[in-house]
Order: sequence, then structure tokens, then C-alpha cells
Amino acid sequence: MADTHALATLVQALKGLPGVGIKSAQRMAFQLLQNDRATARQLAAALQNAVDNVRHCACCHTFTEAELCDTCLDDARDRTQLCVVETPADQSAIERTDTYRGLYFVLMGKLSPLDGIGPHDIGLSKLKQRVGDGWVREVILATNFTAEGEATAHVISEMIRQQGLQVTRLARGVPAGSELEYVDLGTIAHALVDRR
Amino acid sequence: MADTHALATLVQALKGLPGVGIKSAQRMAFQLLQNDRATARQLAAALQNAVDNVRHCACCHTFTEAELCDTCLDDARDRTQLCVVETPADQSAIERTDTYRGLYFVLMGKLSPLDGIGPHDIGLSKLKQRVGDGWVREVILATNFTAEGEATAHVISEMIRQQGLQVTRLARGVPAGSELEYVDLGTIAHALVDRR
Repeated sequence: MADTHALATLVQALKGLPGVGIKSAQRMAFQLLQNDRATARQLAAALQNAVDNVRHCACCHTFTEAELCDTCLDDARDRTQLCVVETPADQSAIERTDTYRGLYFVLMGKLSPLDGIGPHDIGLSKLKQRVGDGWVREVILATNFTAEGEATAHVISEMIRQQGLQVTRLARGVPAGSELEYVDLGTIAHALVDRR
Repeated sequence: MADTHALATLVQALKGLPGVGIKSAQRMAFQLLQNDRATARQLAAALQNAVDNVRHCACCHTFTEAELCDTCLDDARDRTQLCVVETPADQSAIERTDTYRGLYFVLMGKLSPLDGIGPHDIGLSKLKQRVGDGWVREVILATNFTAEGEATAHVISEMIRQQGLQVTRLARGVPAGSELEYVDLGTIAHALVDRR
């Protein structure tokens, strides 16, 4: 974009963000340097701080700054239920529904053989150990309803069943507020099969 | 996304980037912390370095780390031509054509009354002073062909003409490689009027 090394380095670094191409990176760099150096400084500090301080909860694997996350430390939560999700964002979505009071296990990924992500990368041996703590009775699989999420749920479900625990999966069906005419056929088929 | 303060701060800071919403910011933060802490560190360092070292060329106003940018310091450039562009990215696009050997003046913005950006914010008084250096004979207006870019070009052209210098504007016309059938009518009309 211009002849300065600092600027070229910044554009390259911004291009490293997921979903950001060269044009967006240039626009971001221009915007930050021209109108918003305070934001740039804040972002630099926030990045450094997060990289230095954010680690994984020793119990559920989610992001936390302490040894254990607030959810795992909360005595009011039901220790017999363990909900398995792919990411902290998914965990947060379930929390916002205010309908679940159990604990979580965050995989921090999903099985994805094509990307070379196997059972070890998503901590399945750690999950196996976690569910054997003597408290957990039901494992709720809340991985995404994508091909990879379903495969991950299948592998985990096989593993947990061998340990003699109850395994459930989030219900598939027609989303709230939707009209059947506009719902895809696969979803309607699942809703029919899982009718209650 | 999770209960850590460092993470929430990072998501907020990423959301400050142009074109990044809350979902993208969460995805970026997750990606950086889970798989790519090295990139996060590089980005933090690049931001800090750019904010500390990048400033404006005293002559043409573009981004540079020195008092004057490389283009303004280049003795081989034609000092009688001055090309006025909105941003360093536009300057870079013209440079890549390898057809212009004059100097530049980078407005670092455009007139935009609705956003409160007036002549002072894009350095028009500095431009006035710049073109009066005794060398410049022709000012080439290469602001964008948007409503705001055209208005900016108009204001500058009025200003420069009063100083008795030649003012030209990039030609409007049909883009190279395009078929008339698919070119918008305004462009064809301009190409007709400006035919040569």
C-alpha cells in the first residue's frame, strides 16, 4: 500500500486474521493509522494480554484466566450432567438460553480427518477421564449439526456408552418461528422421525 | 464468548476493526487463541510498531516512517506533475500501472460533509501551498469516481484553477476488457461524451 516497512508488516499481520484478505487488511491498516490510533493501541494491548493470560480450564477445557473457569467452580451447577460442545461460543449460546444448569466440556474443535484433526487434538482421552469422575450420569452431545460435528458426536457417543453412561443428543427439528414451506427437507424429515 | 475479561476485551477490540462484527470478532479471537498465538503476538507487535513509527510525509502526506517518503525523495520523478489521490492504496494502484512518473499528493480522505469531513480535514490548504512550489504545472485529479470523490475533485479543481495551473481529471470510460452490453449506461454515456 505504501513504501513503509511497518505498514507492510501490519497489513501482512492483519491478513493472518480468519476471513481477512489483502484488500480488507489494507483498509483496516489505513483506518487504524489514519483515524484511530487509539483503537490500534487498544487492540495491540488486548492481543498481548489475551495471549499472555488466557489458558484452558483444567476441568472443562474452555478459555479462562484462572486454573478453573467460573462455571466449573460454581457449586450451584448440576454435576450429574455434562454438555459437550465444540467451542466457547457454542457454550455461550447454550448459557444464554438459561435452560441448562449442568457442566460443560469444550472440545475446542471437532474431528476433521481432512485437516488432520484426530481424537487426540480435541482431547477425547481427557473427556473419557472427565466423565469417569463418579458424578456424571448423562452426557449431552451438543456438537454442531454439520458432517464433522455429527461424526464427532458419533465417536464420543460410542466412547461414552462403553463406560455405561447415558448419552443424549440435542434434538433436531424445525427451528422456532419458521414456516414448514421454507424449511429444508432434511430438517423436516428429522423432525418427523424424532416427533414426540 | 466466555467468562474471561481478557477474552472479552480482545473481542471488543477486534470488533473495532472496520467491517468486523461481533461474530467475526469472536471467531477471530477463538482462532488466534486456540490455534495461532504466534500470529496474535505478531499482530500485536506490528500494530504497536506501526502506531509508533508511521507518520505522514511532510511533502505529499502519504504514510512514511521518515520525514519524506521514497517517492518524494526520488530525483528521477517529474516534478511538474502532481497527482492527487484519496488514499495510499489509490497511489499504490497508480504506481503499479507503471505509466506515471510524476509526484503525488495524498488527501488521506475525501470531502464528506455528512461525516463532518471538510476541506481542512483533507489538507486542502496544504495542497494549495504544495502546488505553489514553482515546479508544478499540471495537477491530475485521481480521486474516486464516486459522488464524494467527484465533489472533492470539483472543489480542488476550482481552487487550483485560481492559481493559474493546468488541472486534468482521469478519463472516464469503458473499462478495458469489458463488453458494452454489460457496461452500465452512465459509463457508456461518459465514454461517448469523452470520445477521442
